[in-house]
Amino acid sequence: MSIQLSRQADKPLYLQVADQLRGQIERGELPPHTRLQASRTLAKKLNVNRITVVNAYAELEAEGLVVSRVGSGTFVAPDVSDSTPLENAATLPLWPGSAAPGQVWSPNRMVAEMTRLAHMPGVISFAGGAPADEFLPVNEFRRALNEVLRRDGSQALQYEQVTGYPPLRETIARYLSHQNIQVKSDNILITAGCQQALDMALRVLTQNGTSVLMVEDPCYLGLLDIINYRRITPVAIPVDEHGLRVDWLEQLIPRYRPQLIYVTPSFHNPTGVTMSLERRRALLEIAIRSGVPILEDTSYDGLRYEGDPLPSLKSLDTADIVLQAGGFSKILVPGIRIGYLIAPRLLLERIIATKQTADIFTSSLNQRALHAYLQSGHFAEHLQQVRQAYRARRDAMLVAMEQHFPAEACWRCPRGGMYIWIEMPSDGPTATDLYLAANNYSIAFAIGAVFSASGSFSHAMRLNFVANPPAQIEEGIRRLGKAWKELLARHPATVVPGQQRAVHIL
Amino acid sequence: MSIQLSRQADKPLYLQVADQLRGQIERGELPPHTRLQASRTLAKKLNVNRITVVNAYAELEAEGLVVSRVGSGTFVAPDVSDSTPLENAATLPLWPGSAAPGQVWSPNRMVAEMTRLAHMPGVISFAGGAPADEFLPVNEFRRALNEVLRRDGSQALQYEQVTGYPPLRETIARYLSHQNIQVKSDNILITAGCQQALDMALRVLTQNGTSVLMVEDPCYLGLLDIINYRRITPVAIPVDEHGLRVDWLEQLIPRYRPQLIYVTPSFHNPTGVTMSLERRRALLEIAIRSGVPILEDTSYDGLRYEGDPLPSLKSLDTADIVLQAGGFSKILVPGIRIGYLIAPRLLLERIIATKQTADIFTSSLNQRALHAYLQSGHFAEHLQQVRQAYRARRDAMLVAMEQHFPAEACWRCPRGGMYIWIEMPSDGPTATDLYLAANNYSIAFAIGAVFSASGSFSHAMRLNFVANPPAQIEEGIRRLGKAWKELLARHPATVVPGQQRAVHIL
Repeated sequence: MSIQLSRQADKPLYLQVADQLRGQIERGELPPHTRLQASRTLAKKLNVNRITVVNAYAELEAEGLVVSRVGSGTFVAPDVSDSTPLENAATLPLWPGSAAPGQVWSPNRMVAEMTRLAHMPGVISFAGGAPADEFLPVNEFRRALNEVLRRDGSQALQYEQVTGYPPLRETIARYLSHQNIQVKSDNILITAGCQQALDMALRVLTQNGTSVLMVEDPCYLGLLDIINYRRITPVAIPVDEHGLRVDWLEQLIPRYRPQLIYVTPSFHNPTGVTMSLERRRALLEIAIRSGVPILEDTSYDGLRYEGDPLPSLKSLDTADIVLQAGGFSKILVPGIRIGYLIAPRLLLERIIATKQTADIFTSSLNQRALHAYLQSGHFAEHLQQVRQAYRARRDAMLVAMEQHFPAEACWRCPRGGMYIWIEMPSDGPTATDLYLAANNYSIAFAIGAVFSASGSFSHAMRLNFVANPPAQIEEGIRRLGKAWKELLARHPATVVPGQQRAVHIL
Repeated sequence: MSIQLSRQADKPLYLQVADQLRGQIERGELPPHTRLQASRTLAKKLNVNRITVVNAYAELEAEGLVVSRVGSGTFVAPDVSDSTPLENAATLPLWPGSAAPGQVWSPNRMVAEMTRLAHMPGVISFAGGAPADEFLPVNEFRRALNEVLRRDGSQALQYEQVTGYPPLRETIARYLSHQNIQVKSDNILITAGCQQALDMALRVLTQNGTSVLMVEDPCYLGLLDIINYRRITPVAIPVDEHGLRVDWLEQLIPRYRPQLIYVTPSFHNPTGVTMSLERRRALLEIAIRSGVPILEDTSYDGLRYEGDPLPSLKSLDTADIVLQAGGFSKILVPGIRIGYLIAPRLLLERIIATKQTADIFTSSLNQRALHAYLQSGHFAEHLQQVRQAYRARRDAMLVAMEQHFPAEACWRCPRGGMYIWIEMPSDGPTATDLYLAANNYSIAFAIGAVFSASGSFSHAMRLNFVANPPAQIEEGIRRLGKAWKELLARHPATVVPGQQRAVHIL
């Protein structure tokens, strides 16, 4: 157990200790069940404060690599080779090589980076997942807040039930019934945004370090952030133009026994793809047959620009095997942090108990304001307005890409949502190369690799087409195309056969 | 592995399965490393849907009793006898016999019950932890919200940085500097109430099932809720009139190697006790010497009714070993869910990453409104007003208790906070007996046992003296005294020597 520390390095000492121990554990130099030196002993040996070692051990414990036993010390975890993605990567092609926390482009870093860029003056950012500022209903919300504080007074600022403000739960139940989801308000938990709904579902249905989750490849960043952080093992299922490759599940479910299947059937983030009705039915059929619950994310369902709406998995669910997570961040406003989770009764009890330990309840003021806003009848109008505007912005981006992107670029026209997914020739520069080149033109986007639990999509990127007005989109795509072409000139790519561009602006 | 199911029972089937398996595991009938039947096999045998068994196994896994190995099945956990409080209870007097989740009076149930009662018409409730409705600054907050929405427009409803709205973090840093805590705003994370600050600290510093935490006995309910839910093993340290019995730590820290010491030094919930300066220094000294971090909860610090303020542990902390969690629920308004966590830089990075996976960020609208409110200068005025009113209510309750409670009742006068802790004769009826009797008089309070990680305080109760106006306090205490005396008449208690009442109304 020899460890070299550099006090000059930026990396905190405890992380240096943790990283070197992790390496020794993963290389087998510290085999399972090995007792680590007592923190006091090691601290003395390294001449650091004991808390440095305590934190290093805590880091490894949080990663499931070591286990500390009361009164007897800290040991290398017995089942580490089953539970670390790094180990699995060797044996299982579908496992994430890229999922190790702390890497430069971890989902966690990327989410932070995208927020930073969104706030950076002068930058045209296609990176984030934010809705357009111009359409956030500021005045309607101010009215709703004033109405609530006048009407409810102090109650609007007091403690609220953990499950949520009952009238809001009823309104959401009605709203869902229009989508043929028959759910009692008792089956709805109000959460702090859709992200908390996902985190709560995973905290109850999965176990740090040992659980397996089936995810789309590529997949929503925030979900990968949760599973990386909790060392849950993802099984990455490809997505094609009809959505999740459900046919893959037939062999993979019996093989990996997942606790859950996470999927965004409509206007998928990041690809924009919508899952076909046939696939939806097939997914439900195999989930019911194998008894694996589905976690359905409907964050973008409200943002449909053409075509008929497809039934959600929950609305097709006859076996109460679908949990549905939704929210108002994409379709209304992110800043009030209101989402919800629908779950079978037997699960929801445990999820509610978890929510209570996490934050007791979600802001009563924001729940009441949202309820008042939804009652005011402005929501339908708002949705219609953003749908029109977002559709125009999508088309503006598609036209600009046609004009400014190199011929090798390849994408599909999303029928809803916020994102266009662009594939770059696999023998050319990577999206990271382009990201760095584009930064010189003050352009930002999301590189594809961070959306992948399998380490794929080094040559893909996600563009948010709703956050900027058409003129800025045109300017931003022009600059991005310029950066890209310059990059290609230095590093030429040959068009791969079959990689013809497939655009359908209808 | 024989299991009997009752389809008549209220208890969901998956819980019936889980409970019986838990019993068999804890009685050793299913020894460590035993492979449980495949969920499909067991489901067929029990003639239930496979998801029932899947959920039962997930329940046991969440409790750390079983481990599922990818591709090879579910096994009884190897170290179950080290990690379950129930086992430990036999050997370690300090361990919670009462900590098993799901029991009638689990903290989780009690928190829900108290919220329910607070909303029940006709009931005079001393049970909850809510501030008084009358003093919540509704109009000032409405002004702050309007100001923010006029000034910031859509930005107030957009995504915010995970760490929090920078000006609010700076305001809190200034606010803390007046309490001699020199902290940069970079060391402050904004959370969804103090509860999330505690949950985040524990998620990073402790590990489900295996960690040990030192807590006050009695202790804040919400913290016990977290550790019960996560099967963290509490070591319960008694509290006397000078606060935590720091002298106990000398032997117990080396013996149990805790990851963390949780403490509320000022106006402790539920006892109202304030830790002496000597104890504070002694606690810091031993924490630094043993390298065990302290999590300090300052939720009630603003509510001081007499005496000089004592320095917080963080303000005395020279070794950066104290994490401080605070919030605005008790001193201002609960309904906006704003709290904060101060932590050493090396820890805060990991806590911020955890917060991001949990809910991405805390409501930007509420953060900005709180910032505007604090800038408006009304806060000092508000604190002065509630301090006066709460002090009067405390005194009203003390007087009423003097008049209406049986002579055997025993309590101390808290110098701040929200609660009076009342001890009942240990040979008389329990607080639960009284709780049930008092319900007939539409009176509610919090029974002592739920605040205990050691299963103590069956003969104690906590009364919230701030939530009701003096007249209702007088009426409620009168009814509670009546119920109590009737109970004693049916079930006489003898005064235990040395249990003289100790009241100091100054």
